[in-house]
Amino acid sequence: VHHKKWDLSLVNGGKVLVFPVDGSHWINMKVIIEELHSRGHEITVLRPSDTWYIKPESPHYKSITINSSAGFNEEGFRLFVINTLKMQREGAPLWTRLSIEYELLSLFYQINKDVLQMMGEIFENTKLMQSLHDAKYDVVLTDPAMGGGVLLSHRLGLPLVLNVRWTILGEAHQAIAPSPLSYVPISFSKLTDKMIFSQRVKNFMYYLFTRFQIWFMADPTYKPFVHHYFGSDVHYMELFQAADIWLMRNDFIFEFPRPTMPNIIYMSGFQCKPSKPLSKELEDFVQSSGEHGVIVMTLGTLVEKLPEDVTEDIAAAFAQLPQKVIWRHAGKRPSPLGNNTLLLDWLPQNDLLGHPKTRVFVAHGGTNGIQEAIYHGIPMVGLPLMFDQPYNFFRMEVRGVAKVLDIATVNKDNFLEALKEVLYEPSYREKMKTLSNLHRDQPMKPLDRAIFWIEFVMRHKGAPHLRTESYKMSAFQYHSIDVMAFLLAVIVLLFMVFIFAVKFLRQSMFSSRKVKKE
Amino acid sequence: VHHKKWDLSLVNGGKVLVFPVDGSHWINMKVIIEELHSRGHEITVLRPSDTWYIKPESPHYKSITINSSAGFNEEGFRLFVINTLKMQREGAPLWTRLSIEYELLSLFYQINKDVLQMMGEIFENTKLMQSLHDAKYDVVLTDPAMGGGVLLSHRLGLPLVLNVRWTILGEAHQAIAPSPLSYVPISFSKLTDKMIFSQRVKNFMYYLFTRFQIWFMADPTYKPFVHHYFGSDVHYMELFQAADIWLMRNDFIFEFPRPTMPNIIYMSGFQCKPSKPLSKELEDFVQSSGEHGVIVMTLGTLVEKLPEDVTEDIAAAFAQLPQKVIWRHAGKRPSPLGNNTLLLDWLPQNDLLGHPKTRVFVAHGGTNGIQEAIYHGIPMVGLPLMFDQPYNFFRMEVRGVAKVLDIATVNKDNFLEALKEVLYEPSYREKMKTLSNLHRDQPMKPLDRAIFWIEFVMRHKGAPHLRTESYKMSAFQYHSIDVMAFLLAVIVLLFMVFIFAVKFLRQSMFSSRKVKKE
Repeated sequence: VHHKKWDLSLVNGGKVLVFPVDGSHWINMKVIIEELHSRGHEITVLRPSDTWYIKPESPHYKSITINSSAGFNEEGFRLFVINTLKMQREGAPLWTRLSIEYELLSLFYQINKDVLQMMGEIFENTKLMQSLHDAKYDVVLTDPAMGGGVLLSHRLGLPLVLNVRWTILGEAHQAIAPSPLSYVPISFSKLTDKMIFSQRVKNFMYYLFTRFQIWFMADPTYKPFVHHYFGSDVHYMELFQAADIWLMRNDFIFEFPRPTMPNIIYMSGFQCKPSKPLSKELEDFVQSSGEHGVIVMTLGTLVEKLPEDVTEDIAAAFAQLPQKVIWRHAGKRPSPLGNNTLLLDWLPQNDLLGHPKTRVFVAHGGTNGIQEAIYHGIPMVGLPLMFDQPYNFFRMEVRGVAKVLDIATVNKDNFLEALKEVLYEPSYREKMKTLSNLHRDQPMKPLDRAIFWIEFVMRHKGAPHLRTESYKMSAFQYHSIDVMAFLLAVIVLLFMVFIFAVKFLRQSMFSSRKVKKE
Repeated sequence: VHHKKWDLSLVNGGKVLVFPVDGSHWINMKVIIEELHSRGHEITVLRPSDTWYIKPESPHYKSITINSSAGFNEEGFRLFVINTLKMQREGAPLWTRLSIEYELLSLFYQINKDVLQMMGEIFENTKLMQSLHDAKYDVVLTDPAMGGGVLLSHRLGLPLVLNVRWTILGEAHQAIAPSPLSYVPISFSKLTDKMIFSQRVKNFMYYLFTRFQIWFMADPTYKPFVHHYFGSDVHYMELFQAADIWLMRNDFIFEFPRPTMPNIIYMSGFQCKPSKPLSKELEDFVQSSGEHGVIVMTLGTLVEKLPEDVTEDIAAAFAQLPQKVIWRHAGKRPSPLGNNTLLLDWLPQNDLLGHPKTRVFVAHGGTNGIQEAIYHGIPMVGLPLMFDQPYNFFRMEVRGVAKVLDIATVNKDNFLEALKEVLYEPSYREKMKTLSNLHRDQPMKPLDRAIFWIEFVMRHKGAPHLRTESYKMSAFQYHSIDVMAFLLAVIVLLFMVFIFAVKFLRQSMFSSRKVKKE
């Protein structure tokens, strides 16, 4: 009766090769690594020698360090951030703004080039490749914002799981799911799933722009490498599209409803957890707010220094409120700081957001912060600065759970007004509570779901039954344009034959009549 | 701190209004009703007075009986089945076969018309409608193979959950998920997700046929009713498309991978459960098979009588095998029946399929039987007769887990050959075991998942965040054809302006030269 025994036990000795992306992406990846480790899997992390965040030693993973200069250029990036903020503030002309956008894109593809150089060195390092082969990993787990892990999994012939929100092809869905431009807004477009004609035109043009970006930046960056190592019949996009499982840092609390695919698993909020008690000092400060409650403010890890006039205005606005304020602020102490405001170098964000006294969260709009605010049901005041932040906050704004300010025009008055609106207009809190309820009402915790599917891929050596290979078709084939052209040609042909037959019949009838007449 | 309390308890006192479809559809619905009842929900079933299967009294639900003639015409249907089988057997000419297809479609739309007449009587019955309003149901649960439940939920303004595989618009995905014809085969087409050009042409033509069916049969049936009761701006398709959750009796073990939507929940195999011990007599018979094992055969509830020559051939083939055979057979005892074959009026299908001695399942290809075979990992010999059966078995055939015979040509020799192939060629069993492993390896049981989402809709009074309203767009808008035409017009216009400007410049240069010359 051998065929009655199902071996569905978890792969306890599973071996996972992780190829991470640095910066905030690593913070996310670490959550998954720690959970995998706690379930008995063995994790190996490939890290570049010049990484910013990724430590070589950890109780949760082994690491292999690759000599490279592909890591995160911390100082250059900070300078870029400070300059961008300054220019936004000073109302730089359109041309300057566009050149900043271009500079950012170039920076992104420069990092990609560095990654590819590193990958070349890895592929040429016979000893390293042999050891990676011999290790017999069950799966490669990577963030495809850079292509390194995708290329490596293909080289090693291993199943591939993505921890993803963006790929080098743009927002992750765009790479594998049908995305009708009529109701799926292109990222960064500040459009919703309900668009009037002019908005649909705008969305279409945004789409064309993303295609140009792929043709002119992604293509020249990746194509030569992939052709060199995998042959000229392999398209680099296909290597991404062939991934077994896409663990999306997204869901439909945050994203507008849209088509999806069987191998997309939504895990938004996987990093969220119940709050722990605060330290004695912080708890005392929070409790001292009484019925007014607390405002929490932080602008993430990248932006530590806002322009000074902005911090002064923010401090002055806070000072006029009866609430207590906890503000993660690294720069100079603003002069108009009120007694109600506590400046901290670092704050326990999750524990504060989960505290019953917290009323409003002032944030920059990184995905992690927004997810934690949704999880804890705290309405937001948004001060988005760059990247996907304005676009993330746009989604919160249209759901009525955040008031968003523009860094270019924020001042004491409109900041104070925004705070008061979110504090005292109950709809913000109520709608955020509804979002939070919806987010929490899942049959399975997002992190458990993510781990299940990583383990699924390990158990079954992939998940081919969940992914289409439609990406192998050309756009003409995919959209059945060749078929429609063929059927049209057949119809035209039949019509012509019909016309010809009618003419011929008429003619022969005519000539027979003529014959008769004669 | 009121905003910290999440009320995510199950709706224990939930009230569910069920509008079922008769026949085998009811068997499926009953599984869900019983589970909902066991979780403390109160279920009310609307049943027509002339129903075939739906009993008025049950420990699991209350019922409201509607006087109608919309029920299942059992006798007429049996006659139809017998005639169809006979004609297939006799090799009826194409024209006769097509007329059978047409007759079946007409029959289907006649049943739909009967349902609509019943719905009209319900809508006009002020007392009944008032009592349905007053009952304050939380959700309507229906099978949209007929439109009654969909119309009622709209009339009552209640959230809607579908237990679905087919709608009046065809296979359920076609109604709400993008279904690119290049890799999503139209149902009944016997095509896979990998098609060469000629197959894609075939698939496109199948698609056109389904559109014709909608235009010429579904449209005239439903449009007048919907316009009369809901206004001429309401399209009946939208009422289906607006459903909150689609519980699909399908999954990607059975179906080819394809785009899906956030509000589609796959629950294939929800009716499957571990086998229970057999009766003493049956167990003794099964054990007497020794190492050879047992063959189980049943052709479902509708087809009790195969043509006599077929049953004779089948019996003769069974008689030549060393296996024991358990055959659900209602007709005359075939004369060449071997000692190894046990005829039964009814057999405990699930318990037999789950028995370690069972080697092969001979079936007609109803979804339930195939799902149970997958669940228990038993390879199949297929004798599909009508409806979706050939198409269901096609999916099993391309996966290498079933050998399929044509009822028109089946005889003793090819039946015996098919049995031997599935019995002795190990790949059938191995591949079926793999399918079974994949099917069972889910984070949550299909039935639990189905119940979760029904309760979710009750808790949140719908699931609007999971469904698009893209179906409200015209096909031109949906596919951005208007936008592309507009952009093309703009490009043409710009080009013409450019040409005009060049001409104008040349002309003025020419004339200025002329002036100079002069």
